[in-house]
Amino acid sequence: MRAVDIIARKRDGVMLSAEEIDFMVQGYVADTIPDYQVAAWLMAIVLRGMDRQETIDLTMAMVRSGAQLDLQDIAPFVADKHSTGGVGDKTTLVVAPLVAAAGIKVGKMSGRGLGFTGGTLDKLESVPGFRSDLSVDEFQSQLEKIGLVVTGQTAGLVPADGKLYSLRDVTATVNSLPLIASSIMSKKIAAGANGIVLDVKVGHGAFMQTEEDALDLATLMVQIGTKMGRKVRAAISDMTQPLGDAVGNALELKEAIDTLHGGGPEDFRRHCLTIASQLLLVAGAVQDTAEAHNDLQHLLDTRRAWHKCEEWIAAQGGDVEYLEDPERLPQARFVRDLPAPHSGYVADLDAREIGLTSMLLGGGRAKKGDVIDHAVGVVLQAKIGDKVEKGQPLMTVHANDEGKLAGAQQRLLAAYQWSESPVDAPPLVHRIVS
Amino acid sequence: MRAVDIIARKRDGVMLSAEEIDFMVQGYVADTIPDYQVAAWLMAIVLRGMDRQETIDLTMAMVRSGAQLDLQDIAPFVADKHSTGGVGDKTTLVVAPLVAAAGIKVGKMSGRGLGFTGGTLDKLESVPGFRSDLSVDEFQSQLEKIGLVVTGQTAGLVPADGKLYSLRDVTATVNSLPLIASSIMSKKIAAGANGIVLDVKVGHGAFMQTEEDALDLATLMVQIGTKMGRKVRAAISDMTQPLGDAVGNALELKEAIDTLHGGGPEDFRRHCLTIASQLLLVAGAVQDTAEAHNDLQHLLDTRRAWHKCEEWIAAQGGDVEYLEDPERLPQARFVRDLPAPHSGYVADLDAREIGLTSMLLGGGRAKKGDVIDHAVGVVLQAKIGDKVEKGQPLMTVHANDEGKLAGAQQRLLAAYQWSESPVDAPPLVHRIVS
Repeated sequence: MRAVDIIARKRDGVMLSAEEIDFMVQGYVADTIPDYQVAAWLMAIVLRGMDRQETIDLTMAMVRSGAQLDLQDIAPFVADKHSTGGVGDKTTLVVAPLVAAAGIKVGKMSGRGLGFTGGTLDKLESVPGFRSDLSVDEFQSQLEKIGLVVTGQTAGLVPADGKLYSLRDVTATVNSLPLIASSIMSKKIAAGANGIVLDVKVGHGAFMQTEEDALDLATLMVQIGTKMGRKVRAAISDMTQPLGDAVGNALELKEAIDTLHGGGPEDFRRHCLTIASQLLLVAGAVQDTAEAHNDLQHLLDTRRAWHKCEEWIAAQGGDVEYLEDPERLPQARFVRDLPAPHSGYVADLDAREIGLTSMLLGGGRAKKGDVIDHAVGVVLQAKIGDKVEKGQPLMTVHANDEGKLAGAQQRLLAAYQWSESPVDAPPLVHRIVS
Repeated sequence: MRAVDIIARKRDGVMLSAEEIDFMVQGYVADTIPDYQVAAWLMAIVLRGMDRQETIDLTMAMVRSGAQLDLQDIAPFVADKHSTGGVGDKTTLVVAPLVAAAGIKVGKMSGRGLGFTGGTLDKLESVPGFRSDLSVDEFQSQLEKIGLVVTGQTAGLVPADGKLYSLRDVTATVNSLPLIASSIMSKKIAAGANGIVLDVKVGHGAFMQTEEDALDLATLMVQIGTKMGRKVRAAISDMTQPLGDAVGNALELKEAIDTLHGGGPEDFRRHCLTIASQLLLVAGAVQDTAEAHNDLQHLLDTRRAWHKCEEWIAAQGGDVEYLEDPERLPQARFVRDLPAPHSGYVADLDAREIGLTSMLLGGGRAKKGDVIDHAVGVVLQAKIGDKVEKGQPLMTVHANDEGKLAGAQQRLLAAYQWSESPVDAPPLVHRIVS
C-alpha cells in the first residue's frame, strides 16, 4: 500500500477501504507518512467527502492510534457530554454535577477555549487549586469514588487527533463534516463512555452556521457512536446569541453556581435541564423527559446537585471556599455598564462578536497556549426579543485594561441589531437527534 | 497575506489574484511556506481548477522564481520545441538539426525519461562524450556559434518547478491542466525562446488519454505563451502506438540517424516534417506548410541536416565517429525476434506497455536517478493496420539480461490486439492549434 495511491483514490472520489484509512492514520502517527501527503489527503477529503462507512472507519482508526480506557470495572455505565463549542456555554459546569447527583457516573475530557469560543477547563480553573491535568489513574479513581470527573484530554488517547488537528488548522482543512465528526467521536469513544450526549451548536457563535449542517453533523456522530455500541443522542441548540448572560471564565462560573442554587438566567437553566434530561435518557434512568425534568428539578431544589459540584471541585484540588463565596473568584478592575444607544427591541445579538470581544479583553486565546485572564468578560442585560429603553444598561463589561475596555465598547454595541417592533427570541433547542 | 487563507480561497473555488499566487510560489521556493501547506493548495487546485488568467499568473510566478535567459543579443529569433512525452519519441534528434539547418536558431532544454516515457537527453547520451550539463554561458555561446544547442534544465531557471514537481509526484497532484501547463510553459519562457512548438501527445502512451484533454492542454499552453509575447503553435499527435519503430535509447538514436539520411520509418519521418514545418511557421521563415515541407525535404536530401547534426553533437563533446558508424553505439548482448502468435491485422498496439517493458529491460527509470542501459529496447516490425502472417517477426527485443528478456516477451506480445479484418492506422497528427 502506498500513500500516494490512497490520496489519488480519494482525489478521484473513490470510497476508501478501512485498511487504506487505517494505513494513512497509523502511518501519520508513526511518522512513516509525511505531513505533506496527509495534507493533500485531507484536502481531497474536504472536497470529495467521505461517506458514513468511511467516517466510521476513520473514527475507528483514530481510536486505535492510541490507548482506550476500559471503564467496565469502575461502573456498568459512564456518561459523557460534548458541546461543539459556543459563547457563554458553561453547560458542563451545571449538567455534570446535576447528572452525577442523579446517580449516573459522569467521566469527561474537556477542552480549552480558542478564538471566539470558551472552554470548560478555563472556566473551572478560575477556582484556585483546580487541577485539569489528571492522569488516567486519577481519572478512573475519582470516577469510581465520587462518580464525577472532568479533566483535560489525556495524552495517550487518540494521538492521531492532536496531530491531524494541528495540520488541519494550517492547511484550511478544518471545515469538513467527516473530519469534525471523527475528531469528536474518536475522543469520546477512546475515553470509554457508554452514553454520550452531543450538544451541536448552530448560529453566529458556532462552527456550524446552518441548521442543515448542524443536523448532518449530529446525525453522523450519532450514527458513528451507535455503530460503536454506545448510546448516543444529540441536541441541536441555538448559538445565535450567547447562552445565558455571562461570557468570560469566572463570570460564567458564577452564573453556573447561581444556576445550581436554583437561580441563573432562564434560557441557560432550561438548556441545562434539556441536556441533563438527554443524559438520563441515554443512561436509561428515566422513561421520558417529563420524568427527567422532575427528577432534575428535585436535585436542584434539594441542593444535591450543588453539593455534588463542591465534592467534585474539591476532589480535583479546587478551593471550595471560592465556590461558597463567589465574590472571592477573580474580579476585574474595571466594571462598566454600557447603556443602550436608543430604545427598541433587540433583533439580533451576534454571539461570535461577543465571544471575540471577550477574547480581546483577555478572556480567550487568539492562538493555542496564550495565557488568559479569568476575571474579564461581559454580562448581558438584554438579549434577543427584550425591549430596551435608551440609556438602560445593555450589558456590563469586566476589564483589567482601560485601553481594551474602550476598544471593546464599540464592538460590543455593534453586536446588537435593533427593531422597532417586537421580536421573538430564537428557540433554545432546534431538535433532538437519537 | 497568509498561506492558510489563500488555500481556503482556492478550496472554496475562488479565483486567486496574481499577488496571492506569487506569494505561494515565492514563499515555497524561499522555504517560508512549508510543503504541507503547498500540498493542500495543490490538491485544491487539482479539484477546483484554475482559470486561464490564474494559470498565466502561476506561470509568470514560476518564471520569476529564478533567472531568465535573455537571448536577444545572440539572435533576433530562437526556436524551441517541447513534447509532452511518449514512447519512441525521438523527434528532437531529427527536428532540431533539420530546423537549425534551415537557418533558424534552436535552443532547447530537454528532460530525461521517467516511467514509460523516454527522454531526449538519455538518447543523446548514447554517444560517448556527449555532455548534457552545459552552463548558461556554454548554452548561449553554442547557440550563437552553431545555432543549435540541446542541454538539460539549467539549475537557476524556474527553481519553483523542480520543487513543485517533486511534491506533486508524491501527493497525487500531477494530473491537473493548469499545473501541467504552467510547469511546461514556465521553463520554455524562462529559457528565452521567441517561438515554441508544442507536441502534445494523446493516447495509451501519453499522459493525456483523450483528444479533448490534449486539446485543452494545447490551447491553454498556446494562450499562455502568446500572452507572454511568444509565437506558439501546438500539434496534437497520436501516441496510441509508439512513434516510429525503435523504443530504447541507442536504438532510437540509430533510427534518427537513418531518418536524417533520408531513411527511417515512414510515420516518424512524416511526423518530423510536421513538427519542423510548424517551427518554420512560428519563425516566419515560410508562408505555408507546403513551402516548409519542400525546404525541409531539400535539407534532408542534401544532407545539410545531417551535417548540422554532426556539428551539434561534436560541439557538445560527442564522438561523431559513433554517429558515422552507428554499429559502434551500445549494443545489447541478446537480440531476439518475437514471432507473431497467429495471422491477422494489428488492431491495437499499446505504447504504454511497450514503453514500460523497455523500462523493465533497463532502458528507462522506475524512479528519478535510476541508472539506465542505453543498449536495450525494442524495434517493432508490425504496427497498427499491418497484416502479419503467423511466425513472421513482430518485433526484435534487445536485452542484456536473459531473465529480463524472458519476462519481456509475454508482456510485449500482450501489447498487441488482433483483428481478422483490415484496420486503419491511426492518424499521426489529430490537429494543429495556433
